[in-house]
Amino acid sequence: MHPVDLIRRKRDGGALDRREIEYIVTSVTDGSLPDYQAGALLMAIVLRGMTAEETAALTDAMVRSGVRVEFDSVDGVPVDKHSTGGVGDKTSLILAPLAVACGALVPMMSGRGLGHTGGTLDKLEAIPGFRTALSLDELRDAIGRIGCALIGQTAEIAPADRRLYALRDVTGTVESIPLISASIMSKKIAEGIKALVLDVKTGAGAFMKTLEDSRALARSLVSIGTASGVRTEALITAMDTPLGTMVGNAMEVIESLEVLKGRGPKDTTDLSVTLAARMLVLGGVHADEADAEKAVRDAIGSGAGLEVFRKIIENQGGDPRVIDDYGRLPSTPHEHAVQASLAGFVVLHAELVGRAAVALGAGRERLEDTVDPAVGIEILAPQGTRVQAGDAVLRVRYRGDARLKEAVRLLDEALRVDEKPPVSRPLILERITHG
Amino acid sequence: MHPVDLIRRKRDGGALDRREIEYIVTSVTDGSLPDYQAGALLMAIVLRGMTAEETAALTDAMVRSGVRVEFDSVDGVPVDKHSTGGVGDKTSLILAPLAVACGALVPMMSGRGLGHTGGTLDKLEAIPGFRTALSLDELRDAIGRIGCALIGQTAEIAPADRRLYALRDVTGTVESIPLISASIMSKKIAEGIKALVLDVKTGAGAFMKTLEDSRALARSLVSIGTASGVRTEALITAMDTPLGTMVGNAMEVIESLEVLKGRGPKDTTDLSVTLAARMLVLGGVHADEADAEKAVRDAIGSGAGLEVFRKIIENQGGDPRVIDDYGRLPSTPHEHAVQASLAGFVVLHAELVGRAAVALGAGRERLEDTVDPAVGIEILAPQGTRVQAGDAVLRVRYRGDARLKEAVRLLDEALRVDEKPPVSRPLILERITHG
Repeated sequence: MHPVDLIRRKRDGGALDRREIEYIVTSVTDGSLPDYQAGALLMAIVLRGMTAEETAALTDAMVRSGVRVEFDSVDGVPVDKHSTGGVGDKTSLILAPLAVACGALVPMMSGRGLGHTGGTLDKLEAIPGFRTALSLDELRDAIGRIGCALIGQTAEIAPADRRLYALRDVTGTVESIPLISASIMSKKIAEGIKALVLDVKTGAGAFMKTLEDSRALARSLVSIGTASGVRTEALITAMDTPLGTMVGNAMEVIESLEVLKGRGPKDTTDLSVTLAARMLVLGGVHADEADAEKAVRDAIGSGAGLEVFRKIIENQGGDPRVIDDYGRLPSTPHEHAVQASLAGFVVLHAELVGRAAVALGAGRERLEDTVDPAVGIEILAPQGTRVQAGDAVLRVRYRGDARLKEAVRLLDEALRVDEKPPVSRPLILERITHG
Repeated sequence: MHPVDLIRRKRDGGALDRREIEYIVTSVTDGSLPDYQAGALLMAIVLRGMTAEETAALTDAMVRSGVRVEFDSVDGVPVDKHSTGGVGDKTSLILAPLAVACGALVPMMSGRGLGHTGGTLDKLEAIPGFRTALSLDELRDAIGRIGCALIGQTAEIAPADRRLYALRDVTGTVESIPLISASIMSKKIAEGIKALVLDVKTGAGAFMKTLEDSRALARSLVSIGTASGVRTEALITAMDTPLGTMVGNAMEVIESLEVLKGRGPKDTTDLSVTLAARMLVLGGVHADEADAEKAVRDAIGSGAGLEVFRKIIENQGGDPRVIDDYGRLPSTPHEHAVQASLAGFVVLHAELVGRAAVALGAGRERLEDTVDPAVGIEILAPQGTRVQAGDAVLRVRYRGDARLKEAVRLLDEALRVDEKPPVSRPLILERITHG
């Protein structure tokens, strides 16, 4: 097999077969495919696309580049959720303990924040002592004892994805639905789950800005999951304005705990409950959606979800006292209020709020940046709230004037006060069950 | 300047400015642009194209990666011809001495054969002792003394082109009119010529199979030359069947000598004369095309062209006795006749004849292959000739049965005998004078 022939075929819009894709994934992973050929092939894939069959074959080859975990010896169905990334999206911290409290197993591997969106690992690590770098043995042990672990990707899981992603990052080949789909799904399939609910964000704060692109990504993801024997569906949810009232790592832990205590913001609560209920239905714990949703809300009301979260924190070395004492979470020396300059209705642009949070240090511009767990933005008056001139709309928790200045510049752009209330679409827009 | 931003812009169909293109050429040449980025960018250029301005900027940057020769101290106008490559195309060996005999200077740098097309250097090197690896000083000296040198590209000329071509060859990014144009024109512009006639081949034996693609390439080449102050025009000429009656290095030297002696095949003679005449007109030696053509034909009739060729051979260390004694050229131990299997009119497919010549060893599949100067194919009955069953159509000069077998297989495919004479188009199809 000559790599240049495969590159030329893809360049001319042709398709590669399973064996050819397997060869490419293997040779990219072991470094035997020269970099110039990897770069040229990735660009040809971005511009020519891949068929559903090619994307499934790519995902499969990436899964087989590493270990596929199994939990067959544990009672219960392993299920998971994946979000394509939003601003203020802390649902993983909430729905994982709730789904476990309702009888599912959740072996969740997550990533770090990059660009304007946050990452589950960064949020969890705001809890003092919390370790996300668990081994696969520790993961299996946690699933057996408490039904859940919230960890980072281990080296054994889809190593091809790490190598491919590193190349895509520096060759302008990130933006490709087949490549994005294979990257997401290879890691999830390798986790050993039987069912997966995808939260595909759409809108100003999402990676996919249009409903059409979001649907295409959702269909691609569902198609791959189904082809690999994982019951998969996607909800397309609006990411026009931040989810909930907190953006920033420690602050999002607080909001998550508030939701688990039954007093969190309605949007975060509703989305977490819906996603957890879909996990239970897809995982076969409940046949009926209404039953599943009732079970999840009961797990909030009874405190069962909060108790699971306590066990998860204890198991992963975190300080469980944060649950009852938010003062044990990292905090900043300074706060700054952003006020409405005139009377009207608040409109908040998700991506710009996310970028302001990154400017404060809550996220990363580049993979190698470190995050500040304490900084962030509290939304005192969420989108649609009626305010008077001078009312505080946002509370910025910051460290250092230079970072504050840049964040405030972005927040001034993110915040608009309109004469009329903004027309807002429902949070959950569509459900995609087929590829 | 971040390379990944330039790659993304090109990926999305945008244009790069002169400074950005200069940066890319410089960093590709000095190796500081990582290979994966070079590969991705080249593929994005192939699939998204380049504007005329980008192509001109690319050519210019490639010229400036090395030396631009000058012949200002020599009396006369330096002119050249470039062909995009055909089968049996030996016009360079003929028109260079003819143009010099008529008063032009011809500092011609040529390439080697690759794929099914031959290369001028391989043909010249079939002359015992002939050196094509002259230095720029030797080139300047030859132009001053005899008005011509026929040499290979020196290391000082457009080094960026060598590095870029090597990358394109292994990344499936050869097939791109902007990249092809910049590669051709950067080397010609750096030669220090004032005028250039392009022979853009079209048809079954050409790199560009359709008239439309050939026109696009011709316009791109003319546009670049003009932008760089070189008076440039292109003839689009048919390459459906081999040019002349000889295909193979030493054999093409013989045909060239026959043309210079006034007894060569009509097609090779006519095309060489027309191209030489256009060189004289563009170079300002003659204002009128008919005058120029008469001068060229006179240089054949008088033997003046042949005398210039003798001086060129002597100057470059070759044995000038080959002119009068073809037995001094390399020859093969064996010959094989390919006969017509039925009566009718000969049709000969240029590319397949070219591939048969490569199979015999006359050309290269890969750059690192060596060529056999002696082998080749003599066309006894050119396209359109009426033959009887059993008539010899081709004479194959070969070395080794395995190579003969493969060549004959290709020639059986290349040769068709039709009931009716083939409809053939004129050899010279169009003249392109504007980009």
